[in-house]
Amino acid sequence: MSDTETPETSETPETPKAKTPEKKDQNVIYVGNKPPMSYVMAVITGFNMGDTNEVTLKARGRAISTAVDVAEIVRNRFFKEAETTNITIGTEQITPREGGNPRNVSTMEITLRKD
Amino acid sequence: MSDTETPETSETPETPKAKTPEKKDQNVIYVGNKPPMSYVMAVITGFNMGDTNEVTLKARGRAISTAVDVAEIVRNRFFKEAETTNITIGTEQITPREGGNPRNVSTMEITLRKD
Repeated sequence: MSDTETPETSETPETPKAKTPEKKDQNVIYVGNKPPMSYVMAVITGFNMGDTNEVTLKARGRAISTAVDVAEIVRNRFFKEAETTNITIGTEQITPREGGNPRNVSTMEITLRKD
Repeated sequence: MSDTETPETSETPETPKAKTPEKKDQNVIYVGNKPPMSYVMAVITGFNMGDTNEVTLKARGRAISTAVDVAEIVRNRFFKEAETTNITIGTEQITPREGGNPRNVSTMEITLRKD
């Protein structure tokens, strides 16, 4: 967690830009408010070029339902053998830049694995 | 909180399912597009009067993020000892009443347990 990250906006549609030296972060896709297919493409790319078989989708707030859409589209249309190995939900506190009260936002992580 | 028994929330917008008389469905709450707090209340009611310690939230489409909100609000504010014992995602096919192509919609189930 070093670089300026506001997950909803830092959508990396194609390649994860390889900024992070850690291997495990390469396969994290932040789902925002683009159409689901953008993220489906990112998952497919991750599966095809990664050295692991796992891709993790992360989303917050309203984008959570998009993340579920993405996982389901990948499983039903592109990698029928893929499985969701892990689903977790949580809460993050967001402090508005302009000040004001921090508010809670729900988060979700879905890990897809293809063997 | 005495006589709001059946979680007043079975508003599945597209298919109005007839009320099922089975016992095990008592603790299922269908999350729709009301404010999250309506469903939080239903969960609390379920926990307080049910004979089991489990409540399952079901949601489709955009309501999925609301369901996550509900689960998180229950855990963070009302039943801090509650756990999400099960989270599953899936896909349902919906056929529009007016005809036309069936379309897929994502579904999610979150089971909360308090001990």
